Amino acid sequence: MLSFESDYIEGAHEQILKRLLETNMEQLSGYGTDCYCERAKEKIKAACKCPDADIYFLTGGTQTNQIIIDAMLAPYEGVIAAVTGHISVHEAGAVEYTGHKVLELPQYEGKIHAEDLEAFLRNFWQDANHEHMVFPGMVYLSHPTEYGTLYSRTELENISCICRSHQIPLYLDGARLGYGLMSLHTDVTLPLIAECCDVFYIGGTKVGALCGEAVVFTRHNTPKHFTTCIKQHGALLAKGRLLGIQFDTLFTDNLYFRISRHAIDMAELMKKGLYEKGCTFYLESPTNQQFILMEDTEIERLRKHVAFSFWEKPDDSHTIVRFATSWATKKEDIVSLMEIL
Amino acid sequence: MLSFESDYIEGAHEQILKRLLETNMEQLSGYGTDCYCERAKEKIKAACKCPDADIYFLTGGTQTNQIIIDAMLAPYEGVIAAVTGHISVHEAGAVEYTGHKVLELPQYEGKIHAEDLEAFLRNFWQDANHEHMVFPGMVYLSHPTEYGTLYSRTELENISCICRSHQIPLYLDGARLGYGLMSLHTDVTLPLIAECCDVFYIGGTKVGALCGEAVVFTRHNTPKHFTTCIKQHGALLAKGRLLGIQFDTLFTDNLYFRISRHAIDMAELMKKGLYEKGCTFYLESPTNQQFILMEDTEIERLRKHVAFSFWEKPDDSHTIVRFATSWATKKEDIVSLMEIL
Amino acid sequence: MLSFESDYIEGAHEQILKRLLETNMEQLSGYGTDCYCERAKEKIKAACKCPDADIYFLTGGTQTNQIIIDAMLAPYEGVIAAVTGHISVHEAGAVEYTGHKVLELPQYEGKIHAEDLEAFLRNFWQDANHEHMVFPGMVYLSHPTEYGTLYSRTELENISCICRSHQIPLYLDGARLGYGLMSLHTDVTLPLIAECCDVFYIGGTKVGALCGEAVVFTRHNTPKHFTTCIKQHGALLAKGRLLGIQFDTLFTDNLYFRISRHAIDMAELMKKGLYEKGCTFYLESPTNQQFILMEDTEIERLRKHVAFSFWEKPDDSHTIVRFATSWATKKEDIVSLMEIL
Amino acid sequence: MLSFESDYIEGAHEQILKRLLETNMEQLSGYGTDCYCERAKEKIKAACKCPDADIYFLTGGTQTNQIIIDAMLAPYEGVIAAVTGHISVHEAGAVEYTGHKVLELPQYEGKIHAEDLEAFLRNFWQDANHEHMVFPGMVYLSHPTEYGTLYSRTELENISCICRSHQIPLYLDGARLGYGLMSLHTDVTLPLIAECCDVFYIGGTKVGALCGEAVVFTRHNTPKHFTTCIKQHGALLAKGRLLGIQFDTLFTDNLYFRISRHAIDMAELMKKGLYEKGCTFYLESPTNQQFILMEDTEIERLRKHVAFSFWEKPDDSHTIVRFATSWATKKEDIVSLMEIL
Repeated sequence: MLSFESDYIEGAHEQILKRLLETNMEQLSGYGTDCYCERAKEKIKAACKCPDADIYFLTGGTQTNQIIIDAMLAPYEGVIAAVTGHISVHEAGAVEYTGHKVLELPQYEGKIHAEDLEAFLRNFWQDANHEHMVFPGMVYLSHPTEYGTLYSRTELENISCICRSHQIPLYLDGARLGYGLMSLHTDVTLPLIAECCDVFYIGGTKVGALCGEAVVFTRHNTPKHFTTCIKQHGALLAKGRLLGIQFDTLFTDNLYFRISRHAIDMAELMKKGLYEKGCTFYLESPTNQQFILMEDTEIERLRKHVAFSFWEKPDDSHTIVRFATSWATKKEDIVSLMEIL
Repeated sequence: MLSFESDYIEGAHEQILKRLLETNMEQLSGYGTDCYCERAKEKIKAACKCPDADIYFLTGGTQTNQIIIDAMLAPYEGVIAAVTGHISVHEAGAVEYTGHKVLELPQYEGKIHAEDLEAFLRNFWQDANHEHMVFPGMVYLSHPTEYGTLYSRTELENISCICRSHQIPLYLDGARLGYGLMSLHTDVTLPLIAECCDVFYIGGTKVGALCGEAVVFTRHNTPKHFTTCIKQHGALLAKGRLLGIQFDTLFTDNLYFRISRHAIDMAELMKKGLYEKGCTFYLESPTNQQFILMEDTEIERLRKHVAFSFWEKPDDSHTIVRFATSWATKKEDIVSLMEIL
Repeated sequence: MLSFESDYIEGAHEQILKRLLETNMEQLSGYGTDCYCERAKEKIKAACKCPDADIYFLTGGTQTNQIIIDAMLAPYEGVIAAVTGHISVHEAGAVEYTGHKVLELPQYEGKIHAEDLEAFLRNFWQDANHEHMVFPGMVYLSHPTEYGTLYSRTELENISCICRSHQIPLYLDGARLGYGLMSLHTDVTLPLIAECCDVFYIGGTKVGALCGEAVVFTRHNTPKHFTTCIKQHGALLAKGRLLGIQFDTLFTDNLYFRISRHAIDMAELMKKGLYEKGCTFYLESPTNQQFILMEDTEIERLRKHVAFSFWEKPDDSHTIVRFATSWATKKEDIVSLMEIL
Repeated sequence: MLSFESDYIEGAHEQILKRLLETNMEQLSGYGTDCYCERAKEKIKAACKCPDADIYFLTGGTQTNQIIIDAMLAPYEGVIAAVTGHISVHEAGAVEYTGHKVLELPQYEGKIHAEDLEAFLRNFWQDANHEHMVFPGMVYLSHPTEYGTLYSRTELENISCICRSHQIPLYLDGARLGYGLMSLHTDVTLPLIAECCDVFYIGGTKVGALCGEAVVFTRHNTPKHFTTCIKQHGALLAKGRLLGIQFDTLFTDNLYFRISRHAIDMAELMKKGLYEKGCTFYLESPTNQQFILMEDTEIERLRKHVAFSFWEKPDDSHTIVRFATSWATKKEDIVSLMEIL
């Protein structure tokens, strides 16, 4: 059966498995102190054009969000996010588990607006009662968002500017960052993200790795004793090489960008086909996730042949569903999908 | 200067101080095991017409909310509350500090609607992804709400019914419960609350006590080892008598209800005067807190003579302010307020 | 029945109740911002000869330990304490509840030794693996200890010196501080404690107050947004006056010291009598708690007439019991005790 | 350079990499719901002879300890462990981070004694004050221990029996379980462990996997909504296949046991050589970790040629060091080590 269910249904890019095999019997020190982690860090710094970056590797997205947010916030601070942000809805309360509130802003196709952020911060500080409230201590963006949308360069710069004027860090969740950077409809680059954000992560799990996310603190602003903090959260991998080798491979010869671009090409092909079939797009997504509004009867028919994800139920007879491409999507599968439709 | 700033600007009802003096040199066992705590519990059970109640005393409202919510939720559960609920906004993240998310519903003059609650719960369980979300584990109401409004008997019964059908406890924050029960515009009684809720608290701090709230678990449903839980939260008073004697006094000869009624009488007098002065009420409050929309210039003039609270700023030239009466409000102060206005 | 069960079996010193009555109907602002809190702070600063002190009032000892330790430690840090320290054993895990480990040192009659502390710290930093361990972030002393014993000036200075050389704060739990300061066998003064410690608290609950502990940060080193932190822990009293008035009274005309001295006088009288009766002292305590080793048969007889506390069971036929005096102990009760013995 | 530094310096057993390659492009559902996870679970159940087992896969040992302990304890409970237990010392306070105290017992070559456990539990329940203490809620054993030692069948059964009579679960940390089971000096089998314990984990990271531990709840006693709990701790791997395929491979054709046995054979060879060289063993270890007491001058010489771990410093001129074998140790490396010595 065809599947466009998500961007993590296959294993890893073959180049990664090849490198894991080649290096397998090398004896390396543990906990991320090996040479492959070092090389990967240097290559990521170069790709970010950010010589002041500190880089760490973690295994998954929720883990990364939880640890970064907890490590960077003071106990009395919360993190500002869109009401649809991954940390707000789909991480089982991982942020609250660490004692911090997610302070929710309205969302517009998954994004927050700079004006809402500015108003929220101004209102907080003007509130005579703010000592009894959760202090805003960080802004969280996902890019691409949970709806596949992207911040523009101007939007990102405006939000960054507000964060700096209020002296709170800006954090960007890049679980699908490759697909955002390689979109045909973006003016945001990796160095721009490094410039605008205090910390962000480059997603590996959904972009060709078996697991792994690369955290980038952009100005030697790693929280004190961060390795101990990772250990305390149960997230320090003994064989750190597993993450180092994967990111070293992804950032060699632009592999990360090339495979991301492939997913975008496949998504554009799929979009074109879906338009031609007269599908109703829930919103215009410039990345690898496409959200389609479908009649439930049509969905019933389709799911016998194709796997995809259920998103929301706007009314009793329709559903919004998601079709995702990835680094592993084959052109012939797009063609087959169109035939089925 | 006159003050209507809050309902906790004076000390305690004189009867309470008298009893503290009379019993002062009695040698009593600690941690809430003394005879006055026992007597207070019996009297509260009788007032609630709830023989199956278990009762505990704590010192303040945020502490009570934090401990009850934390003790009754499973780690993967959050508490549903109005977006304006005290736990959502004005407790500095005390609930999140214990690891639980506040799941926010829309508010209507401070209240939640049964339909929104029902829809929220239905959507949660229907969501294919709900294993990745915070489970709804409790419903929190404040009664009176933060805006002085009250649930009707029907509203309370409907919400209670939804909670039972979804098998989640209903918790009512009664920081100002006396003022709600003695309102001229309510059909909700203390026994009804005991019947509808799994747990609630009867506020003392704002209704005549120096400090203290009485927690009522309505059907012998106290969480296991709850005293240890209180101790673990740093909330077990060594001289538990301080709380026992106060609640014993408040629930002797209906003192709690009589002084609450006095506050309501004063509020009604104030409301009448404010209407006559042509004041704009932000909403219709049937309890001791009155919210008035005022021009900022008028506020400037007034605050030289009267203390009151700032609530919200709807626009650049107006402010919503709060005038509160209490058990201690004197009739002549209401008269003076009217003269100043 | 006679009772020497603890130092918190009576209410408050009459002078405190008198002041609560006198000030009862004054309208004061909430949350510790009233004039009595201010006055109490000034008087405590003077008593400590510590003009750089910041002072806060909390309701109980476990609450105070929990909040101070949590607010001063980094997330990856723990607090060093004697294995018999109150936080190690008798606070239901209140410190661990906030995410921090209690790092236990051996105890000698309730005290830790400077050499053990120095060795512990040196070993930690020398351990190649210390990034995988809990960092020592504070030293906790109780003075008097849980066994009624006292640190000498030299001991306190040595421990303080080690803390400073390792740049970790020294915290002293003074739940019974008055009884320590007024002991006939001490060279430790309140200003010395202020000099040696980074933070400590002056216990009220066990020294004549209804409730209340005064936290002293000795060099304007209050953690950032500490009031919000108190609120977040559910510990911010709405009627802060209750604490302010009590400590204002205790620190007027040396009341705190005078009533503490009374308890010591009563303890010395009791000690003399117990020696004369041939009692076996478990250890030599210079404060208001006396620990006696008794045969179980003797205990059975005695408890019909006198209340006291059970401490430990060293063997099958003996028990260590505690007799405590307090600010409220009457001379005739000591005489009666001797007659019963 | 030769290395006996740890049992996680190489990648994964080649059979595992082979299977990862073979299955790489299969499209599988995420979060541990794939067929390889299912197969691995069935094979583990069979190996444990435990049809009532529920099995989950996590990535690392500290993560596993943290999640199991947090999920199985009530908030007021702590976990009993040897003072040298991994959770007590070398997990950066990961257990305390989740709010639970580690209740430490004395250790004897890394093990706890049943008598100490029994006495601890009896004392707790007899203590009149136990409501103010952390309740014992679980017993944690490591097997092999941190010193390579093993519980005997009788020891394990006795501890299990005490746990059951006190109705607290027994948890066994099997980070190096394979090496324990394949020891030449053990009467403990995998089915026995499943019988004695309520929950345990079979370590993969140190026994041939890239990462991964298999948690076994032995009697359908998985905590409610455990997947959500894993997600909340940031530990739910999107590509659960990574863990499923590895454990499926390890439990096919006894691979886990065969490679563990190889490590034991290498350890026995090394032990024999070390004895012949006159080395002083710090203790008698029947598993893959050997602890040797060496003069510091000898260590200086040796470390130029061989990597090993520093353990403890018993005095100024000696050090205890650890030599570890693993599934990947080559016989010729043992021979080379002997030549160097």
